[in-house]
Amino acid sequence: MKLIDGKATAQTIREELKTEVAALKDRLGRAPGLAVVLVGEDPASQVYVRNKIKACEDTGIVSKAFRPEASVSQAELEDLVRRLNADPELDGILVQLPLPRGLDSQRILDLIDPAKDVDGFHPVSMGRLTLGLPGLRPCTPAGVMELLRRYDIPTKGKKAVVVGRSNIVGKPMALLLAQPGVDATVTLCHSRTRDLAAECRQADILVAAIGKANFITADMIKDGAVVIDVGMNRTEKGLAGDCDFHAMKDKVAAITPVPGGVGPMTIAMLMVNTLAACRRRMGLES
Amino acid sequence: MKLIDGKATAQTIREELKTEVAALKDRLGRAPGLAVVLVGEDPASQVYVRNKIKACEDTGIVSKAFRPEASVSQAELEDLVRRLNADPELDGILVQLPLPRGLDSQRILDLIDPAKDVDGFHPVSMGRLTLGLPGLRPCTPAGVMELLRRYDIPTKGKKAVVVGRSNIVGKPMALLLAQPGVDATVTLCHSRTRDLAAECRQADILVAAIGKANFITADMIKDGAVVIDVGMNRTEKGLAGDCDFHAMKDKVAAITPVPGGVGPMTIAMLMVNTLAACRRRMGLES
Ligand SMILES: NC(=O)c1ccc[n+]([C@@H]2O[C@H](COP(=O)([O-])OP(=O)(O)OC[C@H]3O[C@@H](n4cnc5c(N)ncnc54)[C@H](OP(=O)(O)O)[C@@H]3O)[C@@H](O)[C@H]2O)c1
Ligand SMILES: NC(=O)c1ccc[n+]([C@@H]2O[C@H](COP(=O)([O-])OP(=O)(O)OC[C@H]3O[C@@H](n4cnc5c(N)ncnc54)[C@H](OP(=O)(O)O)[C@@H]3O)[C@@H](O)[C@H]2O)c1
Repeated sequence: MKLIDGKATAQTIREELKTEVAALKDRLGRAPGLAVVLVGEDPASQVYVRNKIKACEDTGIVSKAFRPEASVSQAELEDLVRRLNADPELDGILVQLPLPRGLDSQRILDLIDPAKDVDGFHPVSMGRLTLGLPGLRPCTPAGVMELLRRYDIPTKGKKAVVVGRSNIVGKPMALLLAQPGVDATVTLCHSRTRDLAAECRQADILVAAIGKANFITADMIKDGAVVIDVGMNRTEKGLAGDCDFHAMKDKVAAITPVPGGVGPMTIAMLMVNTLAACRRRMGLES
Repeated sequence: MKLIDGKATAQTIREELKTEVAALKDRLGRAPGLAVVLVGEDPASQVYVRNKIKACEDTGIVSKAFRPEASVSQAELEDLVRRLNADPELDGILVQLPLPRGLDSQRILDLIDPAKDVDGFHPVSMGRLTLGLPGLRPCTPAGVMELLRRYDIPTKGKKAVVVGRSNIVGKPMALLLAQPGVDATVTLCHSRTRDLAAECRQADILVAAIGKANFITADMIKDGAVVIDVGMNRTEKGLAGDCDFHAMKDKVAAITPVPGGVGPMTIAMLMVNTLAACRRRMGLES
């Protein structure tokens, strides 16, 4: 069994980025800039935002935090996004989700300039992903693709099964795996899937993005499969993935641990996206 | 075996539309309007465009044809699209593909106002489809969904296999079948799929969008499957689908013929989209 070490890979990517960011700064006279918008005081969101700002510091990307109160109106928040769109020194805009009740997230996301959509959630970004056009990809599935590449995991003609069809993980993941050049044959599963175990057992590559601790058991995995566990579930025993890591670890060819697998890659890809957005906005090759 | 009669269904839809278009015309003082842009003299495109204009006439939608010569410049064609975007009486804009060599179709499509994107090929339309947001859907996969609905073919928890991953058929088809409420478990296959026959044999619903006459043979189909044949292939013996209709017709629960299956639905859905675009642009419920 090969452990797919997302923490180490993310660290490598950050080191690579450091060099690229420094070179870009020399060239442009400014570093890439990321706006991070956190509305209200949700504790989990605060942790995520802190980690993202920390990653910016590590890589030399300039982060600007905006922290409107939970009572901010839709119009005020939309105004903020418009101002961030117009700021020439900001290359990326990230609005931490979920937004407090009463705010319409979709309208906020739709307002972000697609050129600055480093989360990849804008309809234009998602459309370009679906159409196979260049663009900013959602960070978590992009992080999974990066792990597959860096660990030389073959995908062409392989059977990939993605469990979960969310907009931020499952659907873009399935589309990325199915695209020409990657060329997996992809099955997308969800809570209405009739025989999930039978689907999973066919997977050469299984991606679990369900949100249920240890839901995918060892008997649902084919011998020698590659298992990518996107799940991050708080349990009494700490953070658990969607896959029963300990039961299946001797059966698989490779697997991501939780924590230390996909999680750290998500933030690394946010940095990659910010750099790419900066390059593209400045008319440099991407 | 139930024959899924797309020709008759399309006719029914056109009749329904006639009534709705007339009612909308009474209310708005104008009928919905569709701009059809045909560049050059490609014979197949001319037939398609003629059929689309004919469908408009049948349903009471006003069509306006624009026929720039093949020598039109990119800038001129972009100007035309901008003028059509600005025309308040045009609700839909269709640019017949393929465009002559030298013209950048993607840049033309990107320019169409997504509110008028009745073909559903704009990144915003495709993104909204992927995200499960309301919007205009590509006509051919939308036509397949309409056939499944009108023939009461259950999809929830069923295994659907889509063969072909093009932007206009395969990918949007897979996404529509996987969306909540439809709830199929979808496998997307393509030319790199390792064991296509084994994938197809699992299908409760098989959608073929390959472009190879009679490529899907009877032994690749499960007993009692529903087969949707999107293929339209010119052969010596006339138009043929991607599925070997005659060999599998006694094995399947239901099947679309070629011609007379999915083909006529595509144009009907273009009319449905034009009406929907008109309603939405005029601020009426969609
Ligand atoms: N590592 C990271 O950086 C990162 C990033 C994002 C998310 N995550 C984690 O990934 C997990 C999924 O996140 P998400 O945002 O995609 O979740 P989500 O929006 O809640 O989606 C969960 C998906 O799992 C499906 N599902 C639920 N129960 C199922 C069952 N019994 N069998 C099969 N499918 C089932 C759901 O199906 P239906 O659509 O039918 O309801 C849904 O499509 C969570 O643990 C989350 O914390 C991690
Ligand atoms: N009824 C209608 O109104 C309508 C509308 C549109 C299209 N069509 C017809 O539908 C068919 C497909 O159209 P399209 O535009 O989607 O075609 P396309 O863009 O040529 O795509 C064909 C797809 O089939 C896949 N494919 C080719 N050979 C294969 C093989 N041996 N095994 C598995 N997959 C294979 C290709 O895989 P790769 O991606 O790996 O190359 C590709 O994804 C054509 O016959 C077309 O005329 C009909």
